[in-house]
Amino acid sequence: MAQKKNVTFDDIAKYTNFSKTTISRYFNNPDSLTLENQQIISEALVKLNYKENKVARILANGKTEFVGIIIPDLYHHFYSEILNRILATYETFGYKFLVFIGNENEETERQYIRELLAYKIEGMIILSHTMPSLELAKLPIPIVTIEREDEYVSSVNTDNYMGGYQATSLLSRHRCDVLIHINTPTPKEVPAYGRIRAFSDFCTEHDLKHEILIRELGISYESAEAQISSLFEHLETAYAGLKKGIFLSSDTHANVLLNLLVRKYGRLPEDYLIIGFDNSPISREAVLPISTMGQQVDKLAFEAVSLLVEQMNEQKKRRPAALENPVHKVIPPVFFRRETTEK
Amino acid sequence: MAQKKNVTFDDIAKYTNFSKTTISRYFNNPDSLTLENQQIISEALVKLNYKENKVARILANGKTEFVGIIIPDLYHHFYSEILNRILATYETFGYKFLVFIGNENEETERQYIRELLAYKIEGMIILSHTMPSLELAKLPIPIVTIEREDEYVSSVNTDNYMGGYQATSLLSRHRCDVLIHINTPTPKEVPAYGRIRAFSDFCTEHDLKHEILIRELGISYESAEAQISSLFEHLETAYAGLKKGIFLSSDTHANVLLNLLVRKYGRLPEDYLIIGFDNSPISREAVLPISTMGQQVDKLAFEAVSLLVEQMNEQKKRRPAALENPVHKVIPPVFFRRETTEK
Repeated sequence: MAQKKNVTFDDIAKYTNFSKTTISRYFNNPDSLTLENQQIISEALVKLNYKENKVARILANGKTEFVGIIIPDLYHHFYSEILNRILATYETFGYKFLVFIGNENEETERQYIRELLAYKIEGMIILSHTMPSLELAKLPIPIVTIEREDEYVSSVNTDNYMGGYQATSLLSRHRCDVLIHINTPTPKEVPAYGRIRAFSDFCTEHDLKHEILIRELGISYESAEAQISSLFEHLETAYAGLKKGIFLSSDTHANVLLNLLVRKYGRLPEDYLIIGFDNSPISREAVLPISTMGQQVDKLAFEAVSLLVEQMNEQKKRRPAALENPVHKVIPPVFFRRETTEK
Repeated sequence: MAQKKNVTFDDIAKYTNFSKTTISRYFNNPDSLTLENQQIISEALVKLNYKENKVARILANGKTEFVGIIIPDLYHHFYSEILNRILATYETFGYKFLVFIGNENEETERQYIRELLAYKIEGMIILSHTMPSLELAKLPIPIVTIEREDEYVSSVNTDNYMGGYQATSLLSRHRCDVLIHINTPTPKEVPAYGRIRAFSDFCTEHDLKHEILIRELGISYESAEAQISSLFEHLETAYAGLKKGIFLSSDTHANVLLNLLVRKYGRLPEDYLIIGFDNSPISREAVLPISTMGQQVDKLAFEAVSLLVEQMNEQKKRRPAALENPVHKVIPPVFFRRETTEK
């Protein structure tokens, strides 16, 4: 995954007309900036990361075709939201989407992909983790992935490391006595692993008491609740009397923890701070609006489709140029401060 | 919409080997039966309602094709759940789905439908309310609708009247002082109108104090919360000290009301009972599990696709028989008793 190795604070400061201090605050203390200024810096980071300067030209000749989408599940609210946003690009690009939800049924998913290829689909957007990118890269049509292992294919991902870093930094500034990260088993090559790495790095760099809790949380509320209940009991006993800053891997799971707390105490107790990830609808629909490191789902969806359209258009030329290297776009996260960090 | 006019309590009792009293309890007091027995009676009702005795034969020759789906929005959790279930029928029937989300963008939706027709799609499943069924019936491919106006096209719907009746009956048995129904403006010809009619009928028949609150709640959490907040204030002042039984048109909206209550009181106060509709995931993900009149989403999805496959297969014959009359299948609701009616 492309990190912003070549972009310095100087570059960003110059581009945005903010001071280097402001840029530094965005990385370490985003909450001290207005949402507008966070947004400006976010967008500058996107711009400065662009490998390509132009968004693919919109098909003007009415020869629109079909694109396949594979989503792992609709239980995680992030996925239903991104599906919504991808489908909405029909209005801009005219592509129509064939949708499949894997639901951990790997065999059917592979069959579906094989079958779509027998039809004249022009490209695919893949969010499921079933097939390694090396295998995807061999398919005869352009592929763009979102938030999954992407070594050999083009992709659009959130800057997960930045998201994890900002979230942890924020909890640390609230003077929590212990920082906790709850996540599912995540291979190192999956972009979302950056959240775990950033949490761990920040805590180590700043010598903070912390614990990383990795559990298989499943794709149903019931499985997540069973696991998170037992983690909650652990937190209650192991860290009684300490102020706990908890960063969870998704809003879907943050909601489960928040429910357990409110059911037990009738409110969110003073000694718990919670930050989710995604800014998916459940973060607003929860009993208290959940602070979240937001993925810019509209941008992820739009950039993924743009990138795919660009590559599909190339395929329509008489002599398509081979894609030399996969293109990896990175979208910065945006923090939404809500009630679960109001202490 | 086909009601079960021709099916008597006697027929159902005979079919299920339950007594007529048990059948009557299912209609008026479903909660007094085990979930298993509710399920058996549910299924008997489906069986007895079948206009067609056979599910369409699964395509065996590998000549599977494309089907279009139009969903109004993914904000209502019912829609993301039913989309999930429709897409999952790929494994049974082999059809692949082109999905569009209307999001109240009527013009784009019509363009999408026109465009799909120019491609070789074989049929469509329509949940959006944009085009009248008379217009849909003129399209050159089979159409099946779910939970929308369906006079001139085949459809699969929940027995909304039964759901509304059972929900209201249940609240009444809890000796509420006043019964409230919250819904959005719903035309009489839409199946979900049955919920309003049943609530009104039950309250009138039993001479119960009641109020029906109809508001445009929109397709975002923010719009629903603004409206339901003002309804909540009304309930707090108009019915202070009275036990309120509230039946809402969806779990998505029941969750909004429950959040307002728990934020204010730290728990669900004794004088509020809440029943949602749909059994959509949010009813389990809410701060307290919400009692709900469940739509059998898996059955709605499966029956809709079955019906469509049947009609699409007919179209493949050398001389397809014209469909004499639209087929309307009705799926009974199933009540899920959870914490918001535990008084």
